[in-house]
Amino acid sequence: MEIERLKSGRRMSQAVIHKGIVYLAGQVGAPGEDVATQTRAVLEKIDELLGEAGADRSRLLQATIWLADIADYGAMNQAWEAWLDGAPAPARATAQAQLARADWKVEIIVTAAVQ
Amino acid sequence: MEIERLKSGRRMSQAVIHKGIVYLAGQVGAPGEDVATQTRAVLEKIDELLGEAGADRSRLLQATIWLADIADYGAMNQAWEAWLDGAPAPARATAQAQLARADWKVEIIVTAAVQ
Amino acid sequence: MEIERLKSGRRMSQAVIHKGIVYLAGQVGAPGEDVATQTRAVLEKIDELLGEAGADRSRLLQATIWLADIADYGAMNQAWEAWLDGAPAPARATAQAQLARADWKVEIIVTAAVQ
Repeated sequence: MEIERLKSGRRMSQAVIHKGIVYLAGQVGAPGEDVATQTRAVLEKIDELLGEAGADRSRLLQATIWLADIADYGAMNQAWEAWLDGAPAPARATAQAQLARADWKVEIIVTAAVQ
Repeated sequence: MEIERLKSGRRMSQAVIHKGIVYLAGQVGAPGEDVATQTRAVLEKIDELLGEAGADRSRLLQATIWLADIADYGAMNQAWEAWLDGAPAPARATAQAQLARADWKVEIIVTAAVQ
Repeated sequence: MEIERLKSGRRMSQAVIHKGIVYLAGQVGAPGEDVATQTRAVLEKIDELLGEAGADRSRLLQATIWLADIADYGAMNQAWEAWLDGAPAPARATAQAQLARADWKVEIIVTAAVQ
């Protein structure tokens, strides 16, 4: 199939694969936990989706990070860099934005090159 | 032409087509109306631009939705799901962000695969 | 190499090139200066990165602009249009979002087609 979708629902697909690129839906997780815990949960979900799509964290092209509170920038970055752990890093941008649920502190959107 | 543009002005093009992907400018519409009406107006504009580009709503890859008030999340989703009406859904992310005009309640940015 | 990266660090790369497209990290600059000065500094950085990647401002596909204060919309647009100076414009979207540093007024994220 020319366009492949993973975990597809009426509102969104969690991943869409087209011409060797996988586009992930904005990932959130661990509501109510602190930003480091939420960031780790988000990155775990990203790992799973990338894996199902035939990609991995070393093949990220672009990442957009929304923080409900930009004061969490340092803690998010620490979790982010620990996750990358020296793997080649994507182009990235981060801004503050309130998310769909008040207890979500971070949402991350990535695209990656499929193997 | 290698890069094709639709409704192109000095500030932006409403659509840019390159290597089988169409990138749409953020669409807004029906200022002053409620969020459901504005969302439907935005989605109509997206339909028109996708059509001109040789794509359609069943070929969306990625969508980013900005709401001026995240409390409108439910009403926007209702209009969004009615529009998709079971068509395969893109990867999607939604956050709250004030838009260029105070009476714009929703802006939607999509990319799609051209036929 | 299938994925090429420019100015790559542990947290992000300033540019990632893949299959003829360059993805730039969100660019910021001239902290503390007014929004026109900051926008010009951002666009200069974008010119440099596009040049290193083998692209240029006439080959932009998509741009996302975050303003810390949406009241700066007019001044940012003036600098943006002066920069494009009639070159074909990308699909674009602009919203208000607080940035990682309080004295950053504008951040711009672009993708472009490599020559």
